[in-house]
Amino acid sequence: MTLTREDCIALDQKDPLRYCRDRFLTAPDCVYLDGNSLGAMSRLAPAALTATVEQEWGRDLIRSWNKAGWFELPSILGNRIGALIGADCGQVVVCDNTSINLHKALHAALGINSSRSRILAHRGDFPTDLYIIQSAVTSCGRQVEVDLIENELEIVERFDENIAVAVLSQINYKTGALLDMERVNQAARSQGILVVWDLCHSAGVMPVELDRHQADFAIGCTYKYLNGGPGAPAYVYAATRHHQQMTQPLSGWWSHANPFSFSPEYIPADGIKRMLSGTQPILSMRGVECGLDTYDGVSMQHVREKSMALCALFVELIELECPDYGLDVIGPSEFAQRGSHVSIAFEHGYSVVQAMIDRGVVGDFRAPNLMRFGFCPLYISFEEVWNAVATLADCLHQKSWLDPKYNQIATVT
Amino acid sequence: MTLTREDCIALDQKDPLRYCRDRFLTAPDCVYLDGNSLGAMSRLAPAALTATVEQEWGRDLIRSWNKAGWFELPSILGNRIGALIGADCGQVVVCDNTSINLHKALHAALGINSSRSRILAHRGDFPTDLYIIQSAVTSCGRQVEVDLIENELEIVERFDENIAVAVLSQINYKTGALLDMERVNQAARSQGILVVWDLCHSAGVMPVELDRHQADFAIGCTYKYLNGGPGAPAYVYAATRHHQQMTQPLSGWWSHANPFSFSPEYIPADGIKRMLSGTQPILSMRGVECGLDTYDGVSMQHVREKSMALCALFVELIELECPDYGLDVIGPSEFAQRGSHVSIAFEHGYSVVQAMIDRGVVGDFRAPNLMRFGFCPLYISFEEVWNAVATLADCLHQKSWLDPKYNQIATVT
Repeated sequence: MTLTREDCIALDQKDPLRYCRDRFLTAPDCVYLDGNSLGAMSRLAPAALTATVEQEWGRDLIRSWNKAGWFELPSILGNRIGALIGADCGQVVVCDNTSINLHKALHAALGINSSRSRILAHRGDFPTDLYIIQSAVTSCGRQVEVDLIENELEIVERFDENIAVAVLSQINYKTGALLDMERVNQAARSQGILVVWDLCHSAGVMPVELDRHQADFAIGCTYKYLNGGPGAPAYVYAATRHHQQMTQPLSGWWSHANPFSFSPEYIPADGIKRMLSGTQPILSMRGVECGLDTYDGVSMQHVREKSMALCALFVELIELECPDYGLDVIGPSEFAQRGSHVSIAFEHGYSVVQAMIDRGVVGDFRAPNLMRFGFCPLYISFEEVWNAVATLADCLHQKSWLDPKYNQIATVT
Repeated sequence: MTLTREDCIALDQKDPLRYCRDRFLTAPDCVYLDGNSLGAMSRLAPAALTATVEQEWGRDLIRSWNKAGWFELPSILGNRIGALIGADCGQVVVCDNTSINLHKALHAALGINSSRSRILAHRGDFPTDLYIIQSAVTSCGRQVEVDLIENELEIVERFDENIAVAVLSQINYKTGALLDMERVNQAARSQGILVVWDLCHSAGVMPVELDRHQADFAIGCTYKYLNGGPGAPAYVYAATRHHQQMTQPLSGWWSHANPFSFSPEYIPADGIKRMLSGTQPILSMRGVECGLDTYDGVSMQHVREKSMALCALFVELIELECPDYGLDVIGPSEFAQRGSHVSIAFEHGYSVVQAMIDRGVVGDFRAPNLMRFGFCPLYISFEEVWNAVATLADCLHQKSWLDPKYNQIATVT
């Protein structure tokens, strides 16, 4: 079977999400496969940010905390994210960053499961999660130990009644492997384990069903597939049933029951606001709002179907066009068991990614040898997948890693 | 002695900071005395933010982490704030919010002074500081107790060798009282106590001399006198001599020695980057940059002199114009012992502040009965102080608190 560019164009013509691309600023000469690191920008973001800067900040100043609803943005945006990750209102707030929200959720879970002494996580998880887990050992106020397992797909077999909390990414940032949230949560529940899910690479590219799968806690960022802008604030989910019991150490005034009483005594807010800390960065919060607008009316089922189709096409084209270089597509072979990015192990991966960027195909590199390409179904077309693989094949044929200009290691995110 | 509007105009004509006002967007019909809550906006902010949104986010996307220097903003902006608060390079980073940075600094200090068991603070301090101190009791990994003193001016007398850390605001958010950093630090040092200074109400309105007074740690926000924009990220200072010893529990990947190695083992960065957590909100960080631009070339000595003169004029005019209402200007009577805001206790304070806002004079209210007015020397004129007192006097004469529309309590920040 051969696949042609025309076949890809035909897929685009049938794509039910085709209309979404116009919601983004896109450059005609760029195939942007790094939406899993920083999502593309909504076309409406410049005007929205200008209004926030010029009117709300510049003219209305302090009055905007009420008039422009700044103070309620963590809850308002939280509820909108909730709608994308299967959480009913009042269980998600947008605030701080992913590391900090993991710290809060992990401490809340450890506090609830206070008679148990172990934390289970995956050694291959995104390092910030591991660092925050590590620090909890000294900051949770009791003796706990961390077990890092090598294969997250075996997580359920490692569950036992000594484990207080498991911290897991729904989709691994490197391999793209997808964990079965329903199965994991069920097994955890049967053993009294609380699970904190990291949704950074799953929210926005598949239906996430936190409430349906009786999740406990979850965290995630908004700057990847949620298109919230550079370093935009993260979110934290806590199931309603945990609200009364949960405590977290970053108990700043925004988490107080009555922040404007300026009482010296801390009384935690009821509900999810208990997960807030202090004042939130409003300009960046507006970026989150613009990002969420790009999902208005979008079917997450369509998103998931297209995500799998884009990844499958990418891998199929690589097998057809680049068979001779020892490229190793890592992670599960079934696309139903993957997220929306594909990582390829290749000795000269760093240089090839730089050479591709130079030719307008933007992916990223993850040490030691992974070329990583993310496919955001809202703005990536099947034809672009074709173009990306053609560029990759060309860089390989040209042995671009021999060109010194592609070997200068710089900071990459 | 009487004071006239013309006297105030004459003061403005001699003001060496007069040129600064043009750096801000100001409304002709508004006297903005709430820069101690949210500073006025730099005139250059809209264009700067538009460039960040349209070019850096919208077009350059992920490349901006290097190309636009996003990744280094915490340090670059930190060094610029350092120049305003008397800290040499490499001791300040801009990140997260004040509550979170206090949590980090407090834990770092407790970790260094690990053989001591008490935290000293002031009951009248901004509540978020007290809440964070309270939570440290359970999150610092050992038995500690908190002593809250009633009068922060007596702090030095309360120092003893059981105290690990004192947390103090250089200027009280209500009373405006200024603590003598030199004296406090000296006394603390002589007893082996580490001090964490909250500079929220002092940075930007007076010379702060952290290094000169051998400060240990400090934190502060950027959205008040530093004009960084709504909820803009905060900063944290740690003296170089503490860097090797300090640890903090929010050890996300941005605090790692080599964040892009994606190593599962946490190795803290050398230096002040150890105080970072995770990814920072770039749009709001750009706001901080615009705010700092408003201080370019400004003499902090001139700022301090004008700040004291504005406050003195305000109090003097109140005594002249509003003698009959039982207004009580709280805090020290010496302006050299105060910061740049004046709080007035008055039974009907809430309503009067609302009535004044309605007439274009923006102050704020702090429960239970404080009308609070902040004077940012960069953009407030002596004539505006005259106008503000005239408006206050008029609201008092009119008994504006009898008007029901000024009695609807809303959220105020």
